[in-house]
Amino acid sequence: MAEQTFKALLFDVFGTVVDWRSSIIAEGEAFGRAKGHEQFRDIDWAAFADGWRAKYQPAMKRVRMGETGWIKLDDLHRSNLDELLEEFSISGLSEAEIDHWNKVWHRLNPWPDTVAGLTRLKQKFVLATLSNGNVALIVNMAKHGGLPWDAVLGAEVAGHYKPQPEAYLKTAAFLGLAPGECLMVAAHNADLLAAGGCGLGTAFVSRPTEYGPEQDFDNTAENEYNYAATDFLDLANQLGC
Amino acid sequence: MAEQTFKALLFDVFGTVVDWRSSIIAEGEAFGRAKGHEQFRDIDWAAFADGWRAKYQPAMKRVRMGETGWIKLDDLHRSNLDELLEEFSISGLSEAEIDHWNKVWHRLNPWPDTVAGLTRLKQKFVLATLSNGNVALIVNMAKHGGLPWDAVLGAEVAGHYKPQPEAYLKTAAFLGLAPGECLMVAAHNADLLAAGGCGLGTAFVSRPTEYGPEQDFDNTAENEYNYAATDFLDLANQLGC
Repeated sequence: MAEQTFKALLFDVFGTVVDWRSSIIAEGEAFGRAKGHEQFRDIDWAAFADGWRAKYQPAMKRVRMGETGWIKLDDLHRSNLDELLEEFSISGLSEAEIDHWNKVWHRLNPWPDTVAGLTRLKQKFVLATLSNGNVALIVNMAKHGGLPWDAVLGAEVAGHYKPQPEAYLKTAAFLGLAPGECLMVAAHNADLLAAGGCGLGTAFVSRPTEYGPEQDFDNTAENEYNYAATDFLDLANQLGC
Repeated sequence: MAEQTFKALLFDVFGTVVDWRSSIIAEGEAFGRAKGHEQFRDIDWAAFADGWRAKYQPAMKRVRMGETGWIKLDDLHRSNLDELLEEFSISGLSEAEIDHWNKVWHRLNPWPDTVAGLTRLKQKFVLATLSNGNVALIVNMAKHGGLPWDAVLGAEVAGHYKPQPEAYLKTAAFLGLAPGECLMVAAHNADLLAAGGCGLGTAFVSRPTEYGPEQDFDNTAENEYNYAATDFLDLANQLGC
């Protein structure tokens, strides 16, 4: 693929930058121990995390299809959580406890290489988020995990959820850049295909345990991308940072 | 004034965070020396900087009044620069040189206390920009000056120039905060009056040479604000950072 000069790296966040599944499981187990009551102690928190995430794409699809006006991800997460609490027969939580639980997405932990990798990449590139997470979620997560973003952009600011083209194109435009000056970094082949279709460069980063030890998709780069890296440190090496 | 618990500080940028006037004068003088030709050598760069800034509010007013759709500040700056080059009888610049000149606003230098003050404030608060500058301008300025923002928000993302209420209210909403959880920090009384009118807290920071040594307005806090500080270090002291 031809050499290109990228000025900004645009990052998918859930799964690419942070380990949502392990973070939710860990917080769930701590919550269960703290509550004591058996209805919380016996919950399969891995199934809970996977169930919550499984409701993510269908919820955004309703927004993408125009069945509703814009709903930010915090609110989609909350509707999905309300369903999930019923499905797991969890009851008796206060509104404050449910709200706190919903904001576990603001407290997801970075992968071990994330902060060191971003810190190196930031010396040479503008680092912006291009996530479906809303601004508050991504800003709070950055405070929690020490993620050194130059800008928090993406779906909410663009008014469109990925993989709609506007999400990618408006993010580049906010940075004053042509699509080809931006390199999309993601652990998901579908995200990179959509970004590439909009003219952005593409970098695949492997996160083979994002969906747990049995993950059988998105383990490898399935298309020709500008870069394919094992983690952010490898990406920094390949980009000369 | 009653004690409030602020979670985010929202910053005016031009004049409050960076010294636009001295930065433009310094770059103009260096440009004049580099070009050599007397038409550039003899320019009064202080008058040039002041003239450019004087066209700022009238240009935004046309957008605010709905005489035109959204125009980002980089483009307003460019129209104003084209006029200014004529007024100063500056000719013979290439398109690349004019574009580079227009982006001097991306290369403004922080006041001496800015980076140290923001670094302290960032330990306790979310720091976001609430400037009329567009995202690319503020992001590039942050890279240039080492400004540690958590989020770059404000006029372009809100689709409204200050002092329109939407600029303040949408910025707070993007952060998932009520207006009263946000503290607007500015060196300009009009900006703080508008922010206070929207329910935000207000902090005046003195920048008595922003408009040069003869500045005879905005030298002091003219209204009752939550805080009035001499610089960002004083503000950090007052906020317990």
